[in-house]
Amino acid sequence: MNTIGSELRLTLFGASHGPCVGAVLDGVPPGMIVDVGRLQSEVDLRRPKADIGTPRQEEDKVEIVSGIVEGRSTGGPITLLVMNRDTDSKKYERFKDVPRPGHADLTARSKYSECVDLRGGGQFSGRMTVGIVAAGAIAKMLLEERGIRVAAFVRQIGKVRDAEERDVTSGVLSRSNDVRAATDEMAEAMRSEILAAKDESDSVGGVVECVVDGLPIGLGEPFFDTVEGEMSKMMFAVPGVKGIEFGAGFAAAGMRGSQHNDPFVLVDGKVRTAKNDAGGILGGITNGMPVVFRVAIKPTASIARGQRSLNVKSGRQTDLKIEGRHDPCIAPRAVPVVEAAAALVLADLSMRGGTVD
Amino acid sequence: MNTIGSELRLTLFGASHGPCVGAVLDGVPPGMIVDVGRLQSEVDLRRPKADIGTPRQEEDKVEIVSGIVEGRSTGGPITLLVMNRDTDSKKYERFKDVPRPGHADLTARSKYSECVDLRGGGQFSGRMTVGIVAAGAIAKMLLEERGIRVAAFVRQIGKVRDAEERDVTSGVLSRSNDVRAATDEMAEAMRSEILAAKDESDSVGGVVECVVDGLPIGLGEPFFDTVEGEMSKMMFAVPGVKGIEFGAGFAAAGMRGSQHNDPFVLVDGKVRTAKNDAGGILGGITNGMPVVFRVAIKPTASIARGQRSLNVKSGRQTDLKIEGRHDPCIAPRAVPVVEAAAALVLADLSMRGGTVD
Amino acid sequence: MNTIGSELRLTLFGASHGPCVGAVLDGVPPGMIVDVGRLQSEVDLRRPKADIGTPRQEEDKVEIVSGIVEGRSTGGPITLLVMNRDTDSKKYERFKDVPRPGHADLTARSKYSECVDLRGGGQFSGRMTVGIVAAGAIAKMLLEERGIRVAAFVRQIGKVRDAEERDVTSGVLSRSNDVRAATDEMAEAMRSEILAAKDESDSVGGVVECVVDGLPIGLGEPFFDTVEGEMSKMMFAVPGVKGIEFGAGFAAAGMRGSQHNDPFVLVDGKVRTAKNDAGGILGGITNGMPVVFRVAIKPTASIARGQRSLNVKSGRQTDLKIEGRHDPCIAPRAVPVVEAAAALVLADLSMRGGTVD
Amino acid sequence: MNTIGSELRLTLFGASHGPCVGAVLDGVPPGMIVDVGRLQSEVDLRRPKADIGTPRQEEDKVEIVSGIVEGRSTGGPITLLVMNRDTDSKKYERFKDVPRPGHADLTARSKYSECVDLRGGGQFSGRMTVGIVAAGAIAKMLLEERGIRVAAFVRQIGKVRDAEERDVTSGVLSRSNDVRAATDEMAEAMRSEILAAKDESDSVGGVVECVVDGLPIGLGEPFFDTVEGEMSKMMFAVPGVKGIEFGAGFAAAGMRGSQHNDPFVLVDGKVRTAKNDAGGILGGITNGMPVVFRVAIKPTASIARGQRSLNVKSGRQTDLKIEGRHDPCIAPRAVPVVEAAAALVLADLSMRGGTVD
Repeated sequence: MNTIGSELRLTLFGASHGPCVGAVLDGVPPGMIVDVGRLQSEVDLRRPKADIGTPRQEEDKVEIVSGIVEGRSTGGPITLLVMNRDTDSKKYERFKDVPRPGHADLTARSKYSECVDLRGGGQFSGRMTVGIVAAGAIAKMLLEERGIRVAAFVRQIGKVRDAEERDVTSGVLSRSNDVRAATDEMAEAMRSEILAAKDESDSVGGVVECVVDGLPIGLGEPFFDTVEGEMSKMMFAVPGVKGIEFGAGFAAAGMRGSQHNDPFVLVDGKVRTAKNDAGGILGGITNGMPVVFRVAIKPTASIARGQRSLNVKSGRQTDLKIEGRHDPCIAPRAVPVVEAAAALVLADLSMRGGTVD
Repeated sequence: MNTIGSELRLTLFGASHGPCVGAVLDGVPPGMIVDVGRLQSEVDLRRPKADIGTPRQEEDKVEIVSGIVEGRSTGGPITLLVMNRDTDSKKYERFKDVPRPGHADLTARSKYSECVDLRGGGQFSGRMTVGIVAAGAIAKMLLEERGIRVAAFVRQIGKVRDAEERDVTSGVLSRSNDVRAATDEMAEAMRSEILAAKDESDSVGGVVECVVDGLPIGLGEPFFDTVEGEMSKMMFAVPGVKGIEFGAGFAAAGMRGSQHNDPFVLVDGKVRTAKNDAGGILGGITNGMPVVFRVAIKPTASIARGQRSLNVKSGRQTDLKIEGRHDPCIAPRAVPVVEAAAALVLADLSMRGGTVD
Repeated sequence: MNTIGSELRLTLFGASHGPCVGAVLDGVPPGMIVDVGRLQSEVDLRRPKADIGTPRQEEDKVEIVSGIVEGRSTGGPITLLVMNRDTDSKKYERFKDVPRPGHADLTARSKYSECVDLRGGGQFSGRMTVGIVAAGAIAKMLLEERGIRVAAFVRQIGKVRDAEERDVTSGVLSRSNDVRAATDEMAEAMRSEILAAKDESDSVGGVVECVVDGLPIGLGEPFFDTVEGEMSKMMFAVPGVKGIEFGAGFAAAGMRGSQHNDPFVLVDGKVRTAKNDAGGILGGITNGMPVVFRVAIKPTASIARGQRSLNVKSGRQTDLKIEGRHDPCIAPRAVPVVEAAAALVLADLSMRGGTVD
Repeated sequence: MNTIGSELRLTLFGASHGPCVGAVLDGVPPGMIVDVGRLQSEVDLRRPKADIGTPRQEEDKVEIVSGIVEGRSTGGPITLLVMNRDTDSKKYERFKDVPRPGHADLTARSKYSECVDLRGGGQFSGRMTVGIVAAGAIAKMLLEERGIRVAAFVRQIGKVRDAEERDVTSGVLSRSNDVRAATDEMAEAMRSEILAAKDESDSVGGVVECVVDGLPIGLGEPFFDTVEGEMSKMMFAVPGVKGIEFGAGFAAAGMRGSQHNDPFVLVDGKVRTAKNDAGGILGGITNGMPVVFRVAIKPTASIARGQRSLNVKSGRQTDLKIEGRHDPCIAPRAVPVVEAAAALVLADLSMRGGTVD
């Protein structure tokens, strides 16, 4: 279903090749100053960039339909709308019979019958994430009022992995390059990785890392509504995400308790930990340290080279070539989506339980 | 909060050191044969084993309070209750002031005030998962009626990793050894890893893998209620889980699209994929292949050796030694919990949307 | 919040004096034929009529943004949009300081601060119900595929009460008159009641009755998600509704059990009841008889005659005269809203549990 | 389903003729003093009284299983348990074939198959409301900390109606008589009405009124989660409730706007209304006046005199005589349930949105 969240609730609407896509954000407290210019810039960050992105070009101008009047939230549902313009729907018809490997063609058609709208990915399209980014921009402003900053950047593309420890400033720095890497050097290496895949009519995967600082102790509602649980549920809605880990994550499997446990220390009169292998979360609740997580993003499913598939009607094996406009790597464009999605989750959690700091 | 699920809904109750823990499972269709003996055996699998587990011994006999009459589900809420007996609560009081590294002591106390019940971990205790295992046993029976089998096993303990490709039978085989490894050889190697940590008054992490086969095409309710999203939200409620990945997971970040995409093929007249890097899920919806995921489990936070902590009242650094009974590795005991939790999620999803097969 | 429903989920968006209002309807099964012309006629039924309605005139043309392609549902979220045109916002500003009796001015401003959007009632406006009617039209089609018909009509206006027992055909017949009464005679009498109030610069209340037939036995999910509970929660969202009763309703308080209990009888081989004081619901579950309920609708709060109010800033008592365009009675226009809302609830329930017939 | 509430969440468990019934109350803030003696007295109020109640006698001692330690809430889920003792299950078997008029026998059996547990009403039993009363007692304490008092009393039994305007003190006074009327005179008249029905082997209906004062302005979350909507959804879960109205309720249908609108006035520097036909709610949000609502309660379905029913297996008409122990009128025993249920709803709402006073 297309609604998520409890006290701050997001509903996505529209479809990739309909007249528009958008979002309803419900539960934003009244009187918040909404910087509409900045909201637009966040959405712009999601647009494809030059040689490493798809040539599909959308203006992606956000229209505010309700909930913000004279630059302030009214307390009512905020409706945000982005028109679709650059659509080319004809080519998608055949994917109902010959599903593209790595795409939702088969599963969508099986679940939703042949009436499913697969044009441009329909409701599965990465384009639906425009609404997440726009709504997330408001969530970010909400968090910033409380001193909380959310920032993401690309940690890995293909074989190139950024091995440095990073903090929330890396997210800001990553805005200076198209790859959204933490430094320009990393960006250069990662760009080569992307272009190499593109040259071979192929695509490549990556890892996006997100860091959130300024969080109070106490977000998260165990047993089931843990910070990790809420965050991961949201993240797996981002197309292409196939894994998530917090703090040391999978590396913790190879560690000893004496290594992994973060000792408590006093910093400026506040209880903090000396390191952060817990990723800022203990018992499903924020512990005052930065929340750190990484999501694994698979290589773009659409590739220009030929692939084996099946005509599901005739049952015959067939070779499929997907023409058109595709990102050779989604990770850079996923950065603002991950940031926005994380902000939505944390703003929702911060409106639920009691926190301390 | 302590409730999860939509059409099949689980509520956990009780606390580790209260008179009992238990679960309410709501939404089980009427008339289902419930093998109470088997329900008990699933719960028994969770009990600690010999030298590699904690010596805390609970009988863990499941009492059926409602919802099952004469071996069949009535359609009403199923209430399951397990008494607590072997509790030793005194030692927990001091952790309110001197929080144990890696535990929820600090976050729980900050969020829930000093009235929080930390005895035995209170509502954060691994003991709460008894209710998950008991309720999950019923979910498993429900899935088995539809030909769906859920099985988990230990994929990694510390530095020892099982590198073989495994299927659902590994879960069954893993029941023959205490470590819950897929083979007795792996079990031996992993047991050494656990005992080595134990000998050094330390603990060690691990990875549990879960495989589900027999699934129809069509489970999952995107945009937000994806199979991955629902599964991961549930899994992060299992104490100690710090990461989850589906199919190729984090390895996908280093792959090319041409490698990662699973080609469609016809098997016995059904559309399947030639390999399963997608982990059985495309676009958030099951694709008819086995769902495969792994969860990273951190090393047990309680270790016998001294650790640095803080007296949060005095602000003084202190050395903390945790006495008592602890598992040197939680992964083996997490296996039945992961299995049960996965069954609950998939049974819930299978009661929501339309599926095809 | 602006979202309701479980398996069929409705989200309203927009605001009365923004560019548009609309609805997202999530969970409609794919492949359903959607008669767009009829969808529009249902919305047209909600428009004010001649002398007994407000002169505010909106074209209320429904635009389908997503979820319906070539006349069939796709399985994706259905987005419906209606532009606002005839808005006159200036006059509302003063109601923030001098709240109109019977309106949400005071409560909205207190809850949502002075940033609240009260233009045209903002998110509290009856105009938001356009989205309910449009989405409900689809729910009705969904129910009709299963042989279920939903129909409402005006049971009472002011002192004029229709005392006849009515069935689902009364809803159809009521479409032939503007008052939405079950017969033209009743319509005449009720119209006089409305015009009498209007002549005195006043307004008048009413009762809308809704009848649903063709329902199977088994809708409703007790203990809490009863048919009555789900229905009433939805109905109280309709502006002006202050009471709801099922079957004999409040009259049951004065009855004996031997009168009120409906004896079971066999009709065409099916178990039915000889009469229907239960309103088609036993134990929160439909019993195969028509579901019958009535909602009490208060007199329109906006009246042309002077009223006592308060300047909440200065604390001074003041006399308030509300100019502008108002319905002297909302009941007739509430009829299609009640019908649509009832259809949404029953379609949602019919997609949840198991039913029998 | 058996769970209700958002920030304060109630799950009922058990069944009438199983070993116990109970409730899990999730979301109670930590550190609240819980007067366990008073909790027990609230539950005692629900027990049948002397000549006007069923002779089924249960001790109804509430056991606290978790969430309250040393008289204070821990922040964890509060588990409350009441043992069943006086059960006599044999007689219920035949109602699966010959459903009792006015009961859920037919609908429950149709929905949940013949495996349904109808012993003592199973999950439909009024006995399930013990959990509501116990949990509601805690909600009341929570509200009282904020100066909010909830009180209910019997407004009508059969033909006897209390015509006086009442306030929250009537609820307190009603505790001095078994009928739970606002005065002893009313109690006498109502008792006669009940005994008259009982003498004729019949039962009688009633109306329970609930008044809540001390509420801030601002509870309620429109568009859909209005105070009326949330309250009514909860109330229709109380067995026997067939209608609900707020303030003037159904009488509003016969009123003019100039009569019904409550003028705003200043009282002790606070904005209040000169009268309360709105029942304390405007636009779905509390307006600072007492919330007033009434629920219609049907006559007890179980009556000793013969009734027409049907053997659903043979299809033959049959005469049914229900032996056993039944309340000739449920209204008096419904009073503490309505009070508790109202407290749960308002406490939940007060933990969601922003309020003002």
